[in-house]
Amino acid sequence: MFVPAIQGQGTDEQQQKWLPLAYRMQIIGCYAQTELGHGSNVQGLETTATFDPKTDEFVIHNPTLTSSKWWPGGLGKISTHAVVYARLIIGGEDHGVHGFIVQLRSLDDHLPLSGITIGDIGMKFGNAAYNTMDNGVLRFDHVRIPRNQMLMRVSQVTREGKYVHSNVPRQLVYGTMVNVRQKIVADASVALSRAVCIATRYSAVRRQFGSHNGGLETQVIDYKTQQARLFPLLASAYAFRFVGEWLKWLYMDVTKRLQANDFSTLPEAHACTAGLKSLTTTATADGIEECRKLCGGHGYLCSSGLPELFAVYVPACTYEGDNIVLLLQVARYLMKTVSQLGSGNKPVGTTAYMARVEQLMQYHSDVEKAEDWLKPNVVLEAFEARAARMSVACAQNLSKFTNPEEGFQELAADLVDAAVAHCQLIVVSKFIEKLQQDIPGKGVKKQLEVLCSIYALFLLHKHLGDFLSTGCINPKQGSLASEQLRNLYSQVRPNAIALVDAFNYTDHYLGSILGRYDGNVYPKLYEEAWKDPLNDSVVPDGFKEYIQPMLKQQLRNARL
Amino acid sequence: MFVPAIQGQGTDEQQQKWLPLAYRMQIIGCYAQTELGHGSNVQGLETTATFDPKTDEFVIHNPTLTSSKWWPGGLGKISTHAVVYARLIIGGEDHGVHGFIVQLRSLDDHLPLSGITIGDIGMKFGNAAYNTMDNGVLRFDHVRIPRNQMLMRVSQVTREGKYVHSNVPRQLVYGTMVNVRQKIVADASVALSRAVCIATRYSAVRRQFGSHNGGLETQVIDYKTQQARLFPLLASAYAFRFVGEWLKWLYMDVTKRLQANDFSTLPEAHACTAGLKSLTTTATADGIEECRKLCGGHGYLCSSGLPELFAVYVPACTYEGDNIVLLLQVARYLMKTVSQLGSGNKPVGTTAYMARVEQLMQYHSDVEKAEDWLKPNVVLEAFEARAARMSVACAQNLSKFTNPEEGFQELAADLVDAAVAHCQLIVVSKFIEKLQQDIPGKGVKKQLEVLCSIYALFLLHKHLGDFLSTGCINPKQGSLASEQLRNLYSQVRPNAIALVDAFNYTDHYLGSILGRYDGNVYPKLYEEAWKDPLNDSVVPDGFKEYIQPMLKQQLRNARL
Repeated sequence: MFVPAIQGQGTDEQQQKWLPLAYRMQIIGCYAQTELGHGSNVQGLETTATFDPKTDEFVIHNPTLTSSKWWPGGLGKISTHAVVYARLIIGGEDHGVHGFIVQLRSLDDHLPLSGITIGDIGMKFGNAAYNTMDNGVLRFDHVRIPRNQMLMRVSQVTREGKYVHSNVPRQLVYGTMVNVRQKIVADASVALSRAVCIATRYSAVRRQFGSHNGGLETQVIDYKTQQARLFPLLASAYAFRFVGEWLKWLYMDVTKRLQANDFSTLPEAHACTAGLKSLTTTATADGIEECRKLCGGHGYLCSSGLPELFAVYVPACTYEGDNIVLLLQVARYLMKTVSQLGSGNKPVGTTAYMARVEQLMQYHSDVEKAEDWLKPNVVLEAFEARAARMSVACAQNLSKFTNPEEGFQELAADLVDAAVAHCQLIVVSKFIEKLQQDIPGKGVKKQLEVLCSIYALFLLHKHLGDFLSTGCINPKQGSLASEQLRNLYSQVRPNAIALVDAFNYTDHYLGSILGRYDGNVYPKLYEEAWKDPLNDSVVPDGFKEYIQPMLKQQLRNARL
Repeated sequence: MFVPAIQGQGTDEQQQKWLPLAYRMQIIGCYAQTELGHGSNVQGLETTATFDPKTDEFVIHNPTLTSSKWWPGGLGKISTHAVVYARLIIGGEDHGVHGFIVQLRSLDDHLPLSGITIGDIGMKFGNAAYNTMDNGVLRFDHVRIPRNQMLMRVSQVTREGKYVHSNVPRQLVYGTMVNVRQKIVADASVALSRAVCIATRYSAVRRQFGSHNGGLETQVIDYKTQQARLFPLLASAYAFRFVGEWLKWLYMDVTKRLQANDFSTLPEAHACTAGLKSLTTTATADGIEECRKLCGGHGYLCSSGLPELFAVYVPACTYEGDNIVLLLQVARYLMKTVSQLGSGNKPVGTTAYMARVEQLMQYHSDVEKAEDWLKPNVVLEAFEARAARMSVACAQNLSKFTNPEEGFQELAADLVDAAVAHCQLIVVSKFIEKLQQDIPGKGVKKQLEVLCSIYALFLLHKHLGDFLSTGCINPKQGSLASEQLRNLYSQVRPNAIALVDAFNYTDHYLGSILGRYDGNVYPKLYEEAWKDPLNDSVVPDGFKEYIQPMLKQQLRNARL
C-alpha cells in the first residue's frame, strides 16, 4: 500500500520530489480509480479535478453518488494518501482522466481531512479472504490540492492553466499493464498448483468403494473420473508456470524496447498479456473450485484450505480487466491482424502463425493412430489451424455488416471463442517450446512431455466442437485423442504425488489438512475440529435460553 | 432436525411407539450416517452395533478413528438423539449397515451421556452459509441401547439374536431416495432463479461503455456477451422448474406403484432422479457463480447476496450422492438398457427413445436454415440421436473388455459424458412436453418457447463436439444453431426483466441490493456500506497500537 503509483508515474521532477518524501513522511497510500458506477470503462470516471487558476490548485470533487470511489484496497481505514483518478477540467474543458495525489487523513490523529468522507464498503466473499482488507469508499466535497500534486509525467498543467503533453510517449502506460498482467499469470500458476497439490495428495489418501474381501478400498486417485478432472488441472498448473516465465521475458523485452522508443511489439504484447490474464485466471478460479469438489465433503471444510483459496483468488477474474472484456480486446487485435494479412504488415510474436493462414485454411490433421497425438507438431498445427480458422470465420462474418462496430457487438460471443482459441494456442506452444530446451533431472522431461500432451489433448477434447466444425480434425481423430488422453492419465498416475511435491510448498504455506505432506489427514482433521471455539464448552452457550425451552415445550419462555 | 427418519423407517409397531414418543419427549434428532472416512460408500461404514444376547442390548462402538460420525447437521451442539447407521454384528457375523436410535445427551442438562463424545467439526465455506449449522463429530465407546431401538421395518433381530427379514420389500429404500432427490431438483430451480433474478436486474441497472456525446452508457444486459452467459441460465432456471414438477409427479407415481407392490418402474425412476440431481445441482452451482461474475466487482460484496447463495448451495453437488458417482449409476443403467435392446425387455420412461435405436443410429438432422432449429421435434431428435449414439458407443467399447467391470472403470469418463447426454435429453424433452400443454397468460407460452429453444441450443453449442462427432448434425447445422441462438437472445431481451419478476421473489427473500426490484442499487449499496461495524468509528480501533507507530517509523513500539 505504500503509494506504488508514485514510483511508476509523475514527472521525473515529481518522482525525485515525492519518492523520498513518501518514505520520510511515512504515508500509507492507495490507488483510487474504480468508482461505484464505473469499473471497466476508466474513461467514464466521474470524479472531477477542476483547475483554479486563482489559487493554483485543483478542486477534487464527486459530483454524483456513482462517482464515489469504491473498492480501493487499504482505503477504508488505513490509507493516509491516495492517488485519485479524476477528470481534469480546465476552464470548463474536459481533458479526460488523470492521476492526483491527495492526502486523505491527518498524519497526527488519522481523522479524514475537511471535505473528505471515507469508510469501509463492507463484507466480501469468504470467511477471511479479502475481509482482512479494508476496501473503501471515498467522497470529496470540493477538496483543494496544490497543482503540483497532479501526476505530470505524460501531460502537464502549467501555472497559467495550459494543458500540455510532455514528450514522454503515452504508450508507456501499456507497459505497466503488461507488467501487472504478467504477474497475474504467474500468480495463477501458484494458486492453481496449491489447489492441485491439496487435491492430488488427498486423492491418494482418500479411499472409497472397491474393497474386496475386507481389504482396503480403492484410492480415489485411481478412478479414471478423478484422473480426468484432476490431471488436466495438474497439467494446467505447469502450463501456466511456463507461459508465465515466458511472459516475464516478454515484459522485459518490451521494457527494453520502450526505453529505446521502439513501440512495434507493444500492441501484440498487450493483446497477449490481456488474453493470457483472462485465460489463466478463469481456468484457475474454476480449477480451484473443481479441486475442492474433488475432495468431496471434506473440501467444504475451511481446514481443507480450499474455500478460502477460492474466495481470495476469484476476484482475479474481475480486477485488472474483466475477463470477457479482455478477450474482446484480444479479438479486436486478431481481427486487425486478419484484415492486414497480405498487406505487407507481417503478423508478429504470438500471431506469427497467421502469416501461414493460407496453408492453415487447407490443413487437415493426418493423425491415424492414438500415438500420433503425442507429436508436438501434430498438436501445434491442429491448434494453429483451429485458431486461424475461427478468426478468419469471424472476420468473414464481420464483413457482412455495413457498420463494423455493430457487427462486432452482434458477433461478440463468437469473437470471444476465437480469442480463447488463440490464447490456448499460445499456452500450448510455449509449453512445447519449453520442452525443446534442456530440462535438468532424470526423467523430468518425459513427465513434462506427458503433462504437455495432457494439457493440449484435454483442451482438444473440451473444445472438440471447434476442431470438428472448422474441419481441422475428423471425429475418428477426436476419438483417438480421447484414447491417448486415457493412456496419458495412466502414465501420470505413478508420478502424480511427485509432480505436486515438486511445487515444494510447505504445509504451513498450503494451510490445508487434506493436503498435508505426510498424508496424516484423518487424525489431524479430528484434532483440528476440537480447536473450534464452539467446542470450548460441551453444552453450548444459550442452552438454557433457547434449546431447553424448546425441549420442554415452553417456547413462550424461550428468548427466540 | 426432529428425527425425520423415525417417520419413514422402523416396524409399524416401532412407529406407533416412537412417533408419539418423539413428540411427547420433545427430543431433537439428527441423521448420523456419514463417517470421517466414509461418505459415498455407505456399505463401507465402520461403526458397529453388536448384539449382546445376555442383556438384550446393542453395543454401539467406534472401532477406528475413521469410523467417527462426521458431518451430520444439528449433531454438534443441539441434537439429543440420533439415528445412527452402524454394522449389525450378531455372534461375530456382520449383517451390514442398519439404523439405530441412540440417545446422545441428557434431556435435563444436555450433557453427552456416558461413553459418548460430541463436538462441532469447525468452520465451513462462506461467511454464514452452513456456519449457522452445527455439523458434528460423534464417537461411541461401547454405548448400550435396548434391542428395540433398532429400526426394524425391513430386517429384525429377535430376542434370541436371530436375524430375520420382514416381508417389507427392500426396494422401499429407493422410494425415499427418489423423493429426496426430486426435492433437490426443485430446489436447484429455486436457487438458480434467485441468482438469475439478481444478475438480470442488475445487468439492466449497470451501464458501462458505449456512451456517445455524453449520453448514458450502454446497459450491460444489451451486450451479446452478457446475454450469451445470462440468458441460458435464465432458460435453465425455467427448465429445471418444469423438470422438477414432472419429477414430483414421477415420485407420486412410483409411490403409488410401490404401495401396490409394483417395482417395475423403480430402477428407471431411480436412475432418472439420480441423473437429474447431478445435472441440475452442477449447473446451478456453476450458474450462481457465473451470475456473481456477471455482476462484476459488486457481485463479490456480500450485500449482492451471491457469495452466500453460492456457499450455501454448492454442497448440493456433494451431498445425497456425489454428482460424478450418480452419473456413473445412470451410466450403468444405460448400459443395462442398451444390452437388453432386442431382448423383448422394452425400455421404459425416460429411456423409451432407446427402443428406436436403429432409427436413431441412422439419423441425420435435416436442418437447412436457422429457423428449423425452432421446431421442437428437430431439437428432440438431435438430442435423442446424440444420447443414443453415445450410449451405444460406450456399450461397444465396453464389449471389447474381457472383464466388464475393468472396462467400466477404464471408460468411466466416456460413460459420464453419455449419462450427461441422456440427462440433458430428459430436461429438454420435459420442457417441450410442458409447452404442449395450455399455458395461461397472454404471450407467456411464446416466451417459454423462446426459453426452451435457448436451453436446447445453448446445450447443443456447448456440447457441439458430441453432436458433430456422433454425426447427428454437420458443422453448417451447428453454425445455424449459433445464429438462431443470437436471434433468440434478442427476442428474450425485452422480456428479460419480466421473466425474472415472474419468479415473484420479494426483496427480503432475495437478500440482494444488486437484485432490488426497484433498481435503486447505487444509493442502497452506499447506505449499506455504512452499516458495517468497521464504520462505527472514523479512526479504526488499534490506530494507536498498530498504524501510528508504523507511520512514525517506531515499529518497535508497535504491538505487531
